[in-house]
Amino acid sequence: MYKQLILLSLIIVGYSCNLKQEKAINKTTQPLEEKIDSANIKTFFNTALTTGKSYEWLRDLTQNIGGRLSGSPEAAKAVVWGKNLMNEVGLDSVWLQPVMVPHWVRGQKEIANYTINGVKKNVPICALGFSVATPNTGITAPVIEVKSIEEAKALGTKLKGKIVFFNRPFDDALINTFKAYGGCVDQRVQGAAVCAPFGAKGVIVRSMTNSIDDYPHTGTMSYGNLPLEQQIPGAAISSRAANILSNDLKENPNLKFFFKQNCKTLPDAPSYNVVGEIKGTETPENIFVVGGHLDSWDLGEGAHDDGAGIVQSLEVAYLFKKNNIKPKNTIRIVFFMNEENGTRGAKKYAELAKINNENHIGGLESDAGGHTPRGFSIDANTANTKLLKSWKKLLAPYGLHDIDKGGSGADISPLKAEQVTLVGYRPDSQRYFDYHHTSIDTFDKVNKRELELGSASMASIVYLMDKYLYTNTVIKP
Amino acid sequence: MYKQLILLSLIIVGYSCNLKQEKAINKTTQPLEEKIDSANIKTFFNTALTTGKSYEWLRDLTQNIGGRLSGSPEAAKAVVWGKNLMNEVGLDSVWLQPVMVPHWVRGQKEIANYTINGVKKNVPICALGFSVATPNTGITAPVIEVKSIEEAKALGTKLKGKIVFFNRPFDDALINTFKAYGGCVDQRVQGAAVCAPFGAKGVIVRSMTNSIDDYPHTGTMSYGNLPLEQQIPGAAISSRAANILSNDLKENPNLKFFFKQNCKTLPDAPSYNVVGEIKGTETPENIFVVGGHLDSWDLGEGAHDDGAGIVQSLEVAYLFKKNNIKPKNTIRIVFFMNEENGTRGAKKYAELAKINNENHIGGLESDAGGHTPRGFSIDANTANTKLLKSWKKLLAPYGLHDIDKGGSGADISPLKAEQVTLVGYRPDSQRYFDYHHTSIDTFDKVNKRELELGSASMASIVYLMDKYLYTNTVIKP
Repeated sequence: MYKQLILLSLIIVGYSCNLKQEKAINKTTQPLEEKIDSANIKTFFNTALTTGKSYEWLRDLTQNIGGRLSGSPEAAKAVVWGKNLMNEVGLDSVWLQPVMVPHWVRGQKEIANYTINGVKKNVPICALGFSVATPNTGITAPVIEVKSIEEAKALGTKLKGKIVFFNRPFDDALINTFKAYGGCVDQRVQGAAVCAPFGAKGVIVRSMTNSIDDYPHTGTMSYGNLPLEQQIPGAAISSRAANILSNDLKENPNLKFFFKQNCKTLPDAPSYNVVGEIKGTETPENIFVVGGHLDSWDLGEGAHDDGAGIVQSLEVAYLFKKNNIKPKNTIRIVFFMNEENGTRGAKKYAELAKINNENHIGGLESDAGGHTPRGFSIDANTANTKLLKSWKKLLAPYGLHDIDKGGSGADISPLKAEQVTLVGYRPDSQRYFDYHHTSIDTFDKVNKRELELGSASMASIVYLMDKYLYTNTVIKP
Repeated sequence: MYKQLILLSLIIVGYSCNLKQEKAINKTTQPLEEKIDSANIKTFFNTALTTGKSYEWLRDLTQNIGGRLSGSPEAAKAVVWGKNLMNEVGLDSVWLQPVMVPHWVRGQKEIANYTINGVKKNVPICALGFSVATPNTGITAPVIEVKSIEEAKALGTKLKGKIVFFNRPFDDALINTFKAYGGCVDQRVQGAAVCAPFGAKGVIVRSMTNSIDDYPHTGTMSYGNLPLEQQIPGAAISSRAANILSNDLKENPNLKFFFKQNCKTLPDAPSYNVVGEIKGTETPENIFVVGGHLDSWDLGEGAHDDGAGIVQSLEVAYLFKKNNIKPKNTIRIVFFMNEENGTRGAKKYAELAKINNENHIGGLESDAGGHTPRGFSIDANTANTKLLKSWKKLLAPYGLHDIDKGGSGADISPLKAEQVTLVGYRPDSQRYFDYHHTSIDTFDKVNKRELELGSASMASIVYLMDKYLYTNTVIKP
């Protein structure tokens, strides 16, 4: 009976929620309100494109600090940089959230080569994150080429003593390159863990890109529960070198591949999420998170991944403040640490939110590069998903057409709950994997206007969500 | 009475047209037909992204021929290149249309500088197309800065003996950069013609770009009816140099600016439009043109402007042939000559179409760069505009959302008529004016996938137009 009462009251609460939602939907379609919203959105874009700060912030982060892998001195510098910048923008409060992060270091530059027809070919490779080193003398072994984890597993003990070459390319026919990435990245993440138990000596993985070029793409891998003594080194090989090697293997299946890398995992290191907020005017206890990740891979400058997301997130706050638009809920800007190899920052943030009994109503993450805006991906309940889609008309003039159900981002997804609306910013994806996790993810690859349009796109949807989102205040205990 | 009869018959024809149009619209919404169309569009994209040729064609054109201003040896080479390539793709017939084109040459590299506070500053400039040279010793004169043609006119005889510095920048708040270009380009085109009669010695014009950089942007200018002896030289100055000069003029309004250029206009030269076609299977007398312009400015490689449009146009034919999709109307690929400074090729093409009594039902032009697709701009009658907009659902999965009324392009617009549907391909505009008419409009600025997506976008709309367009056959005499 008690249970039934609770059920009944939940149904009633749900019903009143729905009523409230209907009102809110009507509100958004009122012409006057729409006019105000439209004008405020226009203001965000005008401000970002004419007096925006994100581009110069990004120049500073990428060119004066550079690549900033978790645990590195550069990551530590980036934390200080981020905290100072948040204060400079004038957020109401700024603080650091301590978090222990993995500390993997690449060591000396990797070497790889093989000889065919008397010609020695040097191969551009780089160690994958968390990989162990090769012995000091490197590894020299015959190569066995596979196109999938399943193919490797099926070969079983035939992998013994071999270097396993994972060479399934991106599916170029997929319009969204993130889908192509999703269809290939298992090779990088699981390759070594799958092959090691069969006695393979190492794995080399085709770089995760549509492009045919000479830049190896690093990225995280995992040994799962494999004990240290069974772990074998994993490296990425550039896409062009992968094509050449594949051809050369057809000519000489017995060629011997050599590679040497010196990476290692040190003990966990102390680091921080950088957090700042604009206090809400009406319901400050409701928190909306906007963020990206402050760490990056070590090879380039972490410009698109994810310097862009960092400076855009802070520019959201700047655009609110500069235009004196006061959110009714608290807007919290978070520079998450350690997205690339561990997402420890994200986990810590969600853990603290729970411990502190914080009420998160939603989040927006920018971690898909600084290219021209396309839309948003929504991970929310039906009512809020519908609500966000109803803003298409307001957002279309800015190229924001793709407003669809989908994932949000690695750093905010630990906040997922029925009443929490999570959104991923989605810029155009075509060029992203040309740079992703390489030495050429540098400041010059980011276009000022595209970056600024992204900031304004994010500010616009945060503004609308702050104003209209159906929050969980009604059903809070 | 006779007139009334004609009117009545036109109304009846119009009515039957409408009926026919209704049927066609119903046809497009039939699920089976939509399924076929959707599958064919998917095929175009798959083919372009996996076995497309446009990128390698563009590499060849830009890197082995390079910049190809009308009348230059490179433009002549490009004509041969284009004809051979059309034959290679296997068009049913390929021919050249002779056309006389302006022949302006830049001569030796331009020089500009001034001295302020004892420091000599070199200034990146380039002559504007059709400009006359300075005297051999250059021009040295005080500078008067203006923001508009109107301001220059109002100054009148105060311009005498001066170099007029047109310095109105792009409006960065405009989302579409072509609008910002449209709001500034009068300074480049008319500046010299307006100032010369007041005794100005020359004009320097801020480069047409959103970007702040060191690359002067050339482009065409016109002296109107000004006699040769009154013509004064015009040059573009880089945006960064324009900002610096403007500041320096505040400090020293009397500083003397020096510039020297050696350009001249030679007698008109013979050249060609390159034309090839796939014959229609049902109504071959109906012609649909797809094209871009083969000429480019001389400073860079003419990669985005308009090598991209050339290779995409030909790839439309390739995608039809490769997939054995036979158009019912004739699809004619045209590489127009001389869009940049005269549009003589476009005029010649339209003139010959009229002389030969050809029945053009429409055209599609790609001359807005090779960036990621956004949509199409439609210059057509109401029925066909509505028809094209009805395909939004089919095209949206490929990022083609902006399907709106607007201009088409300089090379096909001379074909404009009530029953001719003209369409401009519209890629994303954010980066275009970073490169437009500069030394950095080079192959490396074009992304392979973005270029290919453009080819497939164009093929898709040509396919739909070939199939469904309301043509003028009914009301032909």
